[in-house]
Amino acid sequence: MSLIDVRCDLQYEVLAPTSFLFNVAALRTPGQAIESETVVLDPNVTYTESAIGDEGNRIFRLTADPGPFRLRYNARARLAEPAGLDGRMDELAHAELPDDVLSYLTPSRYCESDRLGQLAEDEFGAVEPGYQRVAAICDWIGERMEYTPGSTDSRTTACDVLLQRTGVCRDYAHLAITLCRALCIPARYVSAYALNLEPADFHGYFEAYLGANWYPFDPTGMAPLTGLVQIGVGRDAADTSFATIIGSATLESLTVEAIAAEVAAP
Amino acid sequence: MSLIDVRCDLQYEVLAPTSFLFNVAALRTPGQAIESETVVLDPNVTYTESAIGDEGNRIFRLTADPGPFRLRYNARARLAEPAGLDGRMDELAHAELPDDVLSYLTPSRYCESDRLGQLAEDEFGAVEPGYQRVAAICDWIGERMEYTPGSTDSRTTACDVLLQRTGVCRDYAHLAITLCRALCIPARYVSAYALNLEPADFHGYFEAYLGANWYPFDPTGMAPLTGLVQIGVGRDAADTSFATIIGSATLESLTVEAIAAEVAAP
Amino acid sequence: MSLIDVRCDLQYEVLAPTSFLFNVAALRTPGQAIESETVVLDPNVTYTESAIGDEGNRIFRLTADPGPFRLRYNARARLAEPAGLDGRMDELAHAELPDDVLSYLTPSRYCESDRLGQLAEDEFGAVEPGYQRVAAICDWIGERMEYTPGSTDSRTTACDVLLQRTGVCRDYAHLAITLCRALCIPARYVSAYALNLEPADFHGYFEAYLGANWYPFDPTGMAPLTGLVQIGVGRDAADTSFATIIGSATLESLTVEAIAAEVAAP
Amino acid sequence: MSLIDVRCDLQYEVLAPTSFLFNVAALRTPGQAIESETVVLDPNVTYTESAIGDEGNRIFRLTADPGPFRLRYNARARLAEPAGLDGRMDELAHAELPDDVLSYLTPSRYCESDRLGQLAEDEFGAVEPGYQRVAAICDWIGERMEYTPGSTDSRTTACDVLLQRTGVCRDYAHLAITLCRALCIPARYVSAYALNLEPADFHGYFEAYLGANWYPFDPTGMAPLTGLVQIGVGRDAADTSFATIIGSATLESLTVEAIAAEVAAP
Repeated sequence: MSLIDVRCDLQYEVLAPTSFLFNVAALRTPGQAIESETVVLDPNVTYTESAIGDEGNRIFRLTADPGPFRLRYNARARLAEPAGLDGRMDELAHAELPDDVLSYLTPSRYCESDRLGQLAEDEFGAVEPGYQRVAAICDWIGERMEYTPGSTDSRTTACDVLLQRTGVCRDYAHLAITLCRALCIPARYVSAYALNLEPADFHGYFEAYLGANWYPFDPTGMAPLTGLVQIGVGRDAADTSFATIIGSATLESLTVEAIAAEVAAP
Repeated sequence: MSLIDVRCDLQYEVLAPTSFLFNVAALRTPGQAIESETVVLDPNVTYTESAIGDEGNRIFRLTADPGPFRLRYNARARLAEPAGLDGRMDELAHAELPDDVLSYLTPSRYCESDRLGQLAEDEFGAVEPGYQRVAAICDWIGERMEYTPGSTDSRTTACDVLLQRTGVCRDYAHLAITLCRALCIPARYVSAYALNLEPADFHGYFEAYLGANWYPFDPTGMAPLTGLVQIGVGRDAADTSFATIIGSATLESLTVEAIAAEVAAP
Repeated sequence: MSLIDVRCDLQYEVLAPTSFLFNVAALRTPGQAIESETVVLDPNVTYTESAIGDEGNRIFRLTADPGPFRLRYNARARLAEPAGLDGRMDELAHAELPDDVLSYLTPSRYCESDRLGQLAEDEFGAVEPGYQRVAAICDWIGERMEYTPGSTDSRTTACDVLLQRTGVCRDYAHLAITLCRALCIPARYVSAYALNLEPADFHGYFEAYLGANWYPFDPTGMAPLTGLVQIGVGRDAADTSFATIIGSATLESLTVEAIAAEVAAP
Repeated sequence: MSLIDVRCDLQYEVLAPTSFLFNVAALRTPGQAIESETVVLDPNVTYTESAIGDEGNRIFRLTADPGPFRLRYNARARLAEPAGLDGRMDELAHAELPDDVLSYLTPSRYCESDRLGQLAEDEFGAVEPGYQRVAAICDWIGERMEYTPGSTDSRTTACDVLLQRTGVCRDYAHLAITLCRALCIPARYVSAYALNLEPADFHGYFEAYLGANWYPFDPTGMAPLTGLVQIGVGRDAADTSFATIIGSATLESLTVEAIAAEVAAP
């Protein structure tokens, strides 16, 4: 069990009346309880909270007028012990997969799994199915990629990354998701606050569906799996932007932080 | 009101035990009632019906052993009068859009709306928003594209189509969806049985969210909007494959048909 | 007739022994005489001059050791009166094209003319062939593109540009070349010193083969056609990099200048 | 030394007056003498022979009127003993490369070597430079690719091939060329008649510049290197189409053959 304090501070200059969707609040899930949280807006406009997507990503919707706009979010999250690695973590046959994970086999904007079937089969077809196969995918990516901020942008897909061999956390996750789906392993993207991330920022990793659970994997190896506070879950990063901006606004400053408030004894 | 009889007949040669997802059954929606339907499988294996996705696409799941396998589906669908074109069909401001349509603004596998923002704004920014703007997008596509079976494949995206200017119904729909989303108009893909389609096949078109409803549009102009029996709804064609095959099977024969059983007087 | 003084000053920090190819010297052609020029290297390493490509691009080859390295090039170019616009500027039938222009119909790294045949035909097929058709292509591009430094990079192709509608001079030229070739008009890329360019930098434009000559076109409209001092000619920008660096060196400073020493009366 | 009889028979239905460029004649090079050849056209229109490109690809230019059109080409080629594998086959440092091979380091339409620098360095950076490194590239490709007619088309690039892992001879060659160039080894595409090719067709392979010569490599392993009669040499397949057609004509029949008339004792 872990207790983690997270916060973010986003400061914008709004240039025209702008509609925002913020996806920065920590999710409430069976494994992640939010013990306390505060949202401070300046100016103090009204916002609503919506639950979007399969996992109920918590979206703050609001409209801001021209001028400075600032959102500060703080929360304390209590994370359950992650599912033990001694449990059932095999790959289910396609016919056994529950209905609600099937859409995580589908190719998506940044995860063109339909293009990498042969490659995935060649590289991982002979690896023993289950947790160890997804771990092998992560290792394979970690060995081939060089973590290079600025080398990719919001249009970069898993196929691009596979060719150029550089990227950031979201690119690593997209490539891993794509290879999993190509092997018929449901996989989904998660945005998160992450302990120990250097430099501090929002993080991106993925979950694979094994046995009867979604298991977290981070092919960058940059954050401990026990220190991830989930924000958004989706098919890929297109579903989990921390801010969607319709109008005109520039991000002037972004601060993200995750601190262990109390960490379970090993 | 229309009464339409639809059917399909899919014949496979199964080469190894294979898990199938069939998305051929007509949807049940407020505007589309299924008065009767039959599913005949040969051999008569067990199947389950799942509801997948936001609209509850009706997926038949089953496993088939090696040998011939055939699925025949028949249904009579009663379509409500489509929403009148005199109603409210304006574009909602982003801040007014209901939560459950927001995901249809997101780029998806075949609809890279994040790449076409400038183009969409240049071409359609000055068109009066609402039904007429989506219609203008359809006209624009119809004028530029040449319907060319075989010119695209399952990997072809809206951007590809925009460059090559050839494609089939799914490509037309993908391009239109992409331009709508780039303009902040929610848009989604629909697979369907279509009256008068030449040659008969599954059809693909799209819906745009205007006023408080999803309105159908068919940029190919190949089928009457009052003659579309919906099968699957999703972000793009990746969500509505008529058959997903995990294993090994070849499609030997495909027959699709839609016949007016009784058509409303105009 | 124009007399133009050009110069560039390139300063590198060389980190390991590095082989350089510099393509900064003004071409010597029937229409462009080099009245004087100086090359100053610091440190004063030996260099050789090679003539590369169909037009004999003047490449300085040299090797530099770790440490600062600087190349300064100055020249005075005398430009002949450009071919009058009253001359023969029709498009030749393919069968009449001279052998040595045929390779400029071929798709190249940044000019995928094989992908835009339909689009080119649709947009320009009905325009009267010849100079006016190439001019129409330039106008079409100028109307659709927004000149946006930083919006493209060294991997950006004409198809990318057509989708995103932003770019810089090289992107404009690549798109125009691509459309010309798709219409069977030979077209080639030219790097140049350009009068009045704001901000001063190396410029890129293109030439189309009409009548019996290569005619210059600049779809950006940023420089007068009578103020272009040619440096490199090739299929696209891949053939005309001002510096090719094999080893390790970083560009610390780049200055480019073109000044009218004497301009012909109109 | 080998003596090889080659022929091709191309039959078209010409639908409108059409300008053709045929690149089917065997090259004349120091290593490849043409002892005899015949060209038969039916109808017997006039043609001219042009030498195009760095190696003087022999292009037959002609115009055909509507109706059937047939070209038959026969030749006997005498191939010199290929350069011994005991000679100098090291990679030259960039600074030592002769001027006339530099353009074969440049990315081209189907060989985006600028995108694969990291991958090439990762996979082959530690392999001993020279013949063995190019051979290692060929082996790597052979192990990863599945030769699959119909899986690629005329727009498929090396990057596409690397992702999909299927293709035909031209795709194998494009990928190998791309990896060589990314490692600063000049590489060029060759179209050819090939002994023992199954099924018989025009073949594509590549040459790498090592020591002071161009050495042939065939990553498909489908034809003996001593049984290749060169037709066209270029940056990639865009430079060596066997037929360029401007107008309207359909290929009705294509026959290609290469038979050993006399083969050197090993």
